[in-house]
Amino acid sequence: MEWSVNRESDKPIYQQIFEYIEEKIAYGEFPPGSRLPSERKMAEQLNVNRMTIVHVYDELQASGLVERKKGSGTRVSTHKWGILPKGVTNWRKYIEGGSFLPTYPLIKRIRDEAKVMKDGYNMAGGELSTDLFPASFLQASFNQHAFPSNLGYVHPQGHLEFRETLASYVKEYHDINVTSSSILITSGAQQALYLITQCLLNPGDAVAIEAPSYSYSLPLFQSAGLRIFALPVDAEGINPDDIVTLYRKHQIRMIFLNPTFQSPTGGVMTEPRRERVLEIAAELGIPIVEDDPVSLLSFDGKTHYPLKSIDKSGNVLYVGSLSKVIASSLRVGWIMGPESVINRLADARQQIDFGLSIFPQLIANQFIQSPEYPKHLAFLKQELLERRNEMVLALNEYLGDKVEFSVPKGGLFCWCKIKQKVDDQKLVEEAIKNKILFMPGSVYGSPNGYVRFTYARLQREAIKEAVLKFAKVLDKV
Amino acid sequence: MEWSVNRESDKPIYQQIFEYIEEKIAYGEFPPGSRLPSERKMAEQLNVNRMTIVHVYDELQASGLVERKKGSGTRVSTHKWGILPKGVTNWRKYIEGGSFLPTYPLIKRIRDEAKVMKDGYNMAGGELSTDLFPASFLQASFNQHAFPSNLGYVHPQGHLEFRETLASYVKEYHDINVTSSSILITSGAQQALYLITQCLLNPGDAVAIEAPSYSYSLPLFQSAGLRIFALPVDAEGINPDDIVTLYRKHQIRMIFLNPTFQSPTGGVMTEPRRERVLEIAAELGIPIVEDDPVSLLSFDGKTHYPLKSIDKSGNVLYVGSLSKVIASSLRVGWIMGPESVINRLADARQQIDFGLSIFPQLIANQFIQSPEYPKHLAFLKQELLERRNEMVLALNEYLGDKVEFSVPKGGLFCWCKIKQKVDDQKLVEEAIKNKILFMPGSVYGSPNGYVRFTYARLQREAIKEAVLKFAKVLDKV
Ligand SMILES: Cc1ncc(COP(=O)(O)O)c(C=O)c1O
Ligand SMILES: Cc1ncc(COP(=O)(O)O)c(C=O)c1O
Repeated sequence: MEWSVNRESDKPIYQQIFEYIEEKIAYGEFPPGSRLPSERKMAEQLNVNRMTIVHVYDELQASGLVERKKGSGTRVSTHKWGILPKGVTNWRKYIEGGSFLPTYPLIKRIRDEAKVMKDGYNMAGGELSTDLFPASFLQASFNQHAFPSNLGYVHPQGHLEFRETLASYVKEYHDINVTSSSILITSGAQQALYLITQCLLNPGDAVAIEAPSYSYSLPLFQSAGLRIFALPVDAEGINPDDIVTLYRKHQIRMIFLNPTFQSPTGGVMTEPRRERVLEIAAELGIPIVEDDPVSLLSFDGKTHYPLKSIDKSGNVLYVGSLSKVIASSLRVGWIMGPESVINRLADARQQIDFGLSIFPQLIANQFIQSPEYPKHLAFLKQELLERRNEMVLALNEYLGDKVEFSVPKGGLFCWCKIKQKVDDQKLVEEAIKNKILFMPGSVYGSPNGYVRFTYARLQREAIKEAVLKFAKVLDKV
Repeated sequence: MEWSVNRESDKPIYQQIFEYIEEKIAYGEFPPGSRLPSERKMAEQLNVNRMTIVHVYDELQASGLVERKKGSGTRVSTHKWGILPKGVTNWRKYIEGGSFLPTYPLIKRIRDEAKVMKDGYNMAGGELSTDLFPASFLQASFNQHAFPSNLGYVHPQGHLEFRETLASYVKEYHDINVTSSSILITSGAQQALYLITQCLLNPGDAVAIEAPSYSYSLPLFQSAGLRIFALPVDAEGINPDDIVTLYRKHQIRMIFLNPTFQSPTGGVMTEPRRERVLEIAAELGIPIVEDDPVSLLSFDGKTHYPLKSIDKSGNVLYVGSLSKVIASSLRVGWIMGPESVINRLADARQQIDFGLSIFPQLIANQFIQSPEYPKHLAFLKQELLERRNEMVLALNEYLGDKVEFSVPKGGLFCWCKIKQKVDDQKLVEEAIKNKILFMPGSVYGSPNGYVRFTYARLQREAIKEAVLKFAKVLDKV
């Protein structure tokens, strides 16, 4: 709920809330028969005293807008609008339908908190801080170029010119060979993963994903009815032989890997392992989905080339994104792979959303070709390196004896193992009380007692304070 | 395939094609074991002589890149890259998986043709012609406003400011009352329909849709495993009593309606019917999805208010879009409905694509608030009216005795019944030969012998020529 009471107004607070709820009932946003949040919950959401809400609900009842029954809470009246008591949709039944599992509760808890938290320390979200976005570069390069005159539906695979730019881009930055007809532009890597799981696999299929991994935190694998099997990941990536074992046992049909600066561990798969993984996948005829959103953010000057760049068999579906190198709200990502697969995904995608808006494609197209882009990348890496250093310093200073971690050589995250025994849920709640957000490892499929800190979202000074605050939270639980 | 031979080049055509295919094989875009298009088909796609392709395939075979077997066509070699013959993914098995049905063949045929057709007459696509897009307005209003500095992930329901603007917008233009927390911004109406069918319904559920209708042409209903039942539609919309009949027989769980300037018929549901539909839906407790992309494009000065504006029960999910009033490549649409439903859809949507890019939202936000927007709407309506008049004239002149139609009072389409008996498929093919594209009624669920002509995509002079050409095509079949 984004509405909030206006404490400067002459109108009493309970009156403001009464009118707000009255309006939502009149608009059908709280439909007849639907249940209002409990008094306690509503008070929390609107950040007011619970007695105020008790007062409001009493008034709503007196005016006939809501009905209250012991045990079933406060419901919007069904009589009020002259409709038969039966005459409304039981929305709950619809909301509980469909194939999509909801976001995992702990993640939802953290995301909801991130939306409302003021002057806290957000080390949870996997994104850059505001000052790292190249907003002025983007605007300048956009203003210099005219809009295209044709704003009709775009090609189902994405704007052709942009796909051509991207083909050169991945050649230059990742040594990947691809032509524009084998590229599908997506709404970030997220939609790429969604399309692949929904359109190329069937419910009941077995897939292998890294544990821990970002993929583990996505309900979309389960929403698609897939059976998930874990490939344990260490600082050198997964062990290629585990693929063979999983294949023999479960006939896995697809492998999801995030080989460079993996989320959440920050690890980088070694080159011999990369080669072996490709060999095994080719031998078994299993496709690999390579999720590669941050490999350009390397701090030590080393370039880590994707699996796709050394693959000879066409077994790799390469997924990229501009979210972590430009801006996550741009929503530009891509899939590169065999033409037949790209065509199939593009066709399904027409049904889902008719393609990505042309504007983010135009903006990205201008920017990644401009001389500003390499400058921006250099600036970004330098900033992230400094923030990483700051976090490492702080971790050593305030948590040196309590956590173990290895220094990430790139990317946005620092992955820490807490030495003492902790309950992730309790740790998150205590941290929220102290206005600290982080991601607990359990949402990525690791045991309790791991945490992922994003250093990309906080200024250097804030990183120190955040880690110190976290250390105090840890002492408490 | 977007690549084409360069006829100005010194390099022989067969050599260009050889290198093109060689490249696609090397890049894994034609993976080992995959089948190349037949010689005939490849010749058609690249618009070259079939003997050229025979030559190219011979050369590819001689160089070991492809293998040819009687009866199984031309396949990319599996040996070439030193991989075991088994060592590749059988992509065909993946492509045939997933829950998405492909686009209906006749629609795909027309869309593919639209992509490559040069100097023909496209009366098929439901979109505006290039000159009707407010490109310069959009650019101007965009250049005047700075980008927001925060380009991090957007709120799952969409950019808050834009949702607030939209709440005022639908109040002003459609007399709909809604607050920003009950709005979900989508990638056009298409994604709205997708989310609703995927997230609120279960496989096997029965739904009612108008016949004929745009919904009928969407494989997404069947992809979601829904059972579809028809509500016949005439010039006054559906017959409300049909809902009761369908409900008794099939327990329909949702109704999809496009009440104003319906696609494809152009009809407008009468007011008494609108009221009765709402009454019945409320009595039975069935939600209505109201798809309303073109109601602002009224030619006779009459405003047609949506069902949503007179609904008191919160039973209507209102779906809107800027595709037909601004530009389809903007990809901005919305769903408005009960807050609990919007929250559920927004959560699922996070899994699918992490929300719409902020840029189309910013552009739309600027433009619909600007004084240019009403001017643009007035211009658009005037232009469409003139084109409609031109089409009506041409239909009367060239097809007066052969088709029946009623004059559309708004929207983009003219719906014609052909008096003689025709086969839709044959008519489409003959038309394509003569560079005319239109939509056959059968894809919208009507019997053979109906056609939908878009007058929005062609200039006035072209409309006359297109209808004349169509008349000749009709004479032939
Ligand atoms: C490993 C990984 N893959 C994919 C994504 C999705 O990112 P986007 O859809 O913004 O490209 C993320 C975002 O956090 C990520 O960390
Ligand atoms: C009736 C109707 N609904 C929905 C759509 C989808 O449009 P968009 O996703 O571009 O808003 C169309 C487009 O042709 C349409 O005609």
